[in-house]
Amino acid sequence: MIRIGLLGLGTVGTGVVEILEKRQEELKFLTGEEIKIKKILVKDINKKRKIQLEENIITYDYDEILNHEDISIVVELTGDLEQGYRYIKAALESGKNIVTANKAVVSKYLEELSSLAAKKDLAFLYEASVGGGIPILKSLKEELALNKITEVEGILNGTCNYILTEMFNEELDYEEVLEVAQEMGYAEADSTADVKGYDTLRKLRILGTLAFQGEINENDILLEGISEIIPFDIEQIKKKESTIKLIGEVKELEDGFTALVQPTIIKEDSYFANVNNAFNSVVFRGDNVGELNFYGLGAGMLPTANAVLGDVIDIIKGSYRKGNPLGKRKLKNLNTKLKNEYYLRISSPNDSIYKSIENISKELLSKKDNIAIITKEIEYLEIVELLSSLGIDNNNYFIARILK
Amino acid sequence: MIRIGLLGLGTVGTGVVEILEKRQEELKFLTGEEIKIKKILVKDINKKRKIQLEENIITYDYDEILNHEDISIVVELTGDLEQGYRYIKAALESGKNIVTANKAVVSKYLEELSSLAAKKDLAFLYEASVGGGIPILKSLKEELALNKITEVEGILNGTCNYILTEMFNEELDYEEVLEVAQEMGYAEADSTADVKGYDTLRKLRILGTLAFQGEINENDILLEGISEIIPFDIEQIKKKESTIKLIGEVKELEDGFTALVQPTIIKEDSYFANVNNAFNSVVFRGDNVGELNFYGLGAGMLPTANAVLGDVIDIIKGSYRKGNPLGKRKLKNLNTKLKNEYYLRISSPNDSIYKSIENISKELLSKKDNIAIITKEIEYLEIVELLSSLGIDNNNYFIARILK
Repeated sequence: MIRIGLLGLGTVGTGVVEILEKRQEELKFLTGEEIKIKKILVKDINKKRKIQLEENIITYDYDEILNHEDISIVVELTGDLEQGYRYIKAALESGKNIVTANKAVVSKYLEELSSLAAKKDLAFLYEASVGGGIPILKSLKEELALNKITEVEGILNGTCNYILTEMFNEELDYEEVLEVAQEMGYAEADSTADVKGYDTLRKLRILGTLAFQGEINENDILLEGISEIIPFDIEQIKKKESTIKLIGEVKELEDGFTALVQPTIIKEDSYFANVNNAFNSVVFRGDNVGELNFYGLGAGMLPTANAVLGDVIDIIKGSYRKGNPLGKRKLKNLNTKLKNEYYLRISSPNDSIYKSIENISKELLSKKDNIAIITKEIEYLEIVELLSSLGIDNNNYFIARILK
Repeated sequence: MIRIGLLGLGTVGTGVVEILEKRQEELKFLTGEEIKIKKILVKDINKKRKIQLEENIITYDYDEILNHEDISIVVELTGDLEQGYRYIKAALESGKNIVTANKAVVSKYLEELSSLAAKKDLAFLYEASVGGGIPILKSLKEELALNKITEVEGILNGTCNYILTEMFNEELDYEEVLEVAQEMGYAEADSTADVKGYDTLRKLRILGTLAFQGEINENDILLEGISEIIPFDIEQIKKKESTIKLIGEVKELEDGFTALVQPTIIKEDSYFANVNNAFNSVVFRGDNVGELNFYGLGAGMLPTANAVLGDVIDIIKGSYRKGNPLGKRKLKNLNTKLKNEYYLRISSPNDSIYKSIENISKELLSKKDNIAIITKEIEYLEIVELLSSLGIDNNNYFIARILK
């Protein structure tokens, strides 16, 4: 029998319990083992749960899991950055394998935890942290030894993609859509990490570091979120027969890399334009395989729980690539080489502001109510610095990269 | 050191040698082993090769590989059905692991070879046989224990997709495009298996049997190829704001399954409409993951060789799911339940023929030069039988399913 310690019983944790229940027979046939959740760590031991649980399975004392000799796999689903990190580290140090969906922890502590797990000859798997139910990290890891990967890009956050899709298709306000998304369970009560782009950034940091076999940090990535977008922006984008998506992208150049997470305006007939609602998609390019695309549900109870359990089975069957998957290449950040045309909208404009930005403008889209321009080919930071020097608060503008 | 016996040194075999060469370091780092091709079985020992090979590596005697104790993995790339089968069976019986790209063998002997490999505790891996460089079979196998898969569909043949894309975009004749495809190496000199749909059918038989965990045979699949398509057909399809793809599809119903490979007319804005040229795509649906799409190059030297070597590494690292992946469900063929509207074109028509098919017609598209109709919702075999009873040769008609 395989015994699991589960940390957290929120949406994903509940999904894990549910799938283990309904696919019991198939899992036993495949693994030759019964898989049992032995202990579940929760914050509130008296909270009412949607699912029936055995007596004494719930605990608020992590030591009960750490010290339980029969528990060989800890599944960390707390969603909490520093606590999640401490739990994972302690589990590895106690000789237990780790499966986690916690992208914040994986992003911040990827090198340390990968190295610790490898040293201890244990698994540290985090498929669910990127792309939800899409088996992207495993596929990527398995291509690494065979391919030189030169590019990874993706729509990596279901909440942002849902908001942008609805704003575009239903012509709704940002706040209205966000509210509906929260009611439907697509967006969390505190959606800051999603809409400000941090969630996409973390996933890109993980993908990039694996793909390029060298450390790409959160700080290496240019970041612009979608929280300031307004229906006026959507109108301008539609006029250009384009749509807008929050895209994360790392590219290897001859002597380094570029990395960004930015709202990106793309033609309506391009591939990413058809990735809608809560769907995610990741594209990578390798020298042998060429372009490989993966598409599926990037979030949600069952897709995410499915990814978590895929890792669990890989541990039980030994069917994962052992050892530290991270390479030691030293890569130079070449983001200053990134030049693009950008869409820039500034609210409550006055004439002096328009004059101040005129010399980065290639095309004036509007001067009424909002100033909207398409910039010349320019660095993103140049725009941000210019706006800052003009005293324009970041609540009052929206920037999006334009892909031709 | 890991020693490989390679059977066949055509396009894919050459790609295998090339990747092993250029990714030597990375592969050694990952596997901790040197991977060496010890022997290569060829038909013509004196043929000039594009690649430099060590002396004495080439042989025309399979026993040299079978009896070589140090060879632990046989990579079968002959492309020949019955000979390939004999080679694979003999290798497994001699205790050697198998990697093959030979979809004809895998399709015909899937149950026998899976069972033999499992009995011998050896690997029988065939990722390259479906979807070329796209890691679809492994992903599918790994979802099986967790998901109930209810549908698999795909564009599975690069040659057909290239032909249909070019006929549609460049308004060329079938023969012209085929010739170009052959010159460019997309299509083989004998393209029968591709354009008559056999290749797609074999891949679908493999996908369906894995997905549904019960035997779906070549004979279970309704088959119509693309070899009779003419520019006139493309014109009619364009008028309906649609395009055409050769699609393979298996669906599970409540008490059985349906399976078909048919030219399929789809709306221009649908997902498969954007899978063009030599690209393949496979979509499957599971109860946990929802819809998962994979997209990439379905053929070609390096993508296919990459898939072959992915299997080789999995064997070396032990990172594949061991045991027989096939289930024992008994599934009922429900193809007679499949009703669709079809596009039907008959060349060199006469008035009596039109009268004979009038009562299956929902819409008459043309009576000039060719009769073209859209049928009512009808069974595919009903059309074929009607045409046969009218004495219309299968060189003189083209049928395509219409998806709404």
